Amino acid sequence: MLTAHTIKVLQSLDKKKFRQKYNLFLVEGNKIICELFNSNFKVKEIFSTDPQKLGRTDNPITHISENELKKISFLKTPKDSVAVCHLADDGGLEDKNIQLVLDGLQDPGNLGTIIRLADWFGIEQIICSEDTVDFYNPKVIQATMGSFTRVNVVYTDLVDYLSRTENINIGTDMEGENIYSFEKPEKINLILGNEGNGMRPETEKLLQKSISIPRFGKSQSTESLNVSMAAGIILGQLFSK
Amino acid sequence: MLTAHTIKVLQSLDKKKFRQKYNLFLVEGNKIICELFNSNFKVKEIFSTDPQKLGRTDNPITHISENELKKISFLKTPKDSVAVCHLADDGGLEDKNIQLVLDGLQDPGNLGTIIRLADWFGIEQIICSEDTVDFYNPKVIQATMGSFTRVNVVYTDLVDYLSRTENINIGTDMEGENIYSFEKPEKINLILGNEGNGMRPETEKLLQKSISIPRFGKSQSTESLNVSMAAGIILGQLFSK
Repeated sequence: MLTAHTIKVLQSLDKKKFRQKYNLFLVEGNKIICELFNSNFKVKEIFSTDPQKLGRTDNPITHISENELKKISFLKTPKDSVAVCHLADDGGLEDKNIQLVLDGLQDPGNLGTIIRLADWFGIEQIICSEDTVDFYNPKVIQATMGSFTRVNVVYTDLVDYLSRTENINIGTDMEGENIYSFEKPEKINLILGNEGNGMRPETEKLLQKSISIPRFGKSQSTESLNVSMAAGIILGQLFSK
Repeated sequence: MLTAHTIKVLQSLDKKKFRQKYNLFLVEGNKIICELFNSNFKVKEIFSTDPQKLGRTDNPITHISENELKKISFLKTPKDSVAVCHLADDGGLEDKNIQLVLDGLQDPGNLGTIIRLADWFGIEQIICSEDTVDFYNPKVIQATMGSFTRVNVVYTDLVDYLSRTENINIGTDMEGENIYSFEKPEKINLILGNEGNGMRPETEKLLQKSISIPRFGKSQSTESLNVSMAAGIILGQLFSK
């Protein structure tokens, strides 16, 4: 049974303010929850309509009804279980050879997709401006399909960070060097901007290079690619060399 | 003023059955509507909360209130105008050098994203199995950001088509040839399968080659990439050569 208080606390976790107040976030669905067991994330408790399906775990599991699950799930179609987890320390900021840097990204689906891409390409770290959408947003967590357990996401003052990093800061714009002929430096920060406005001017000033994906279609009215798709195509190229 | 009958007809156009019955579909937002004027699509009429913003057009425009717009829009946040358009003939099926072939793709957002990718890379034609999500689905049309006016999307019996095409049928799977070393044939059908189940066995039998995007991340539990992201990364590689 879920108490009214527990329901209220869990429902509040779709807001960053309450995630920080309680130091908690939600992960939904057995498949992703099982990945938590192999990660550094600490599970506080699990609510499940079918606890046996979760297999062995040291975490306390409460059996709840489908109806109770509906009340605490953030999904349109709730899955089987909800895990309540503690927020993790980001573990500090030490440069890795290839990093993604996000300047004001706002869409949770895009951040989730980019974390999933990073995991695919074995990129260990994503560095975000402080106003980038929160990593613990339930839509981000679910869109990563479990990849959030394997990629370190750090929020920091980007101008400060980009000024002192030893990686080469590379931006993306329509006039940049062609990704197909571009020579890849060894240590890279690939910087991706906000969906509508791109990078901030302060960030742009700290770029050492710009790259772009050539458009082969002839129409001038073709919209530029979505930021996560652009990230995928650029990473596909960077890893080809 | 919108009559109750008009509202009822327009609202029904989120269903394929009614799009076919009335031979109509909706396009929303001035930006995309303006691209219709440079395309082969025929606009029947436009409903707009601010007709002046649309600029000159030969199409009849009806001035409607914000409230009326809410009634006929399929968007969570309705834009300024809705254009009612005639369905187009797909213009027959003549092979192009690089084509995308979709076998049972179900998600409208994925089809929209793939049409947008095709437009970016100048791919003129996408061939779909008959059970692939409908091109005129409002979510597909909006996700293309106007690219649907520049890419020919044909629905056909895939087994029949793939048996007689002169293009090389190339599928994607985890055991395929590495996209980075793969030698690109001149004439390609790049085949993408259903989100959950991949290609049908009948389609798989007609493949001449398989390719795959190597995963650089070390975790075995990393989910395979979303189908539209995989399409983007593969096209990025095909066009690098």
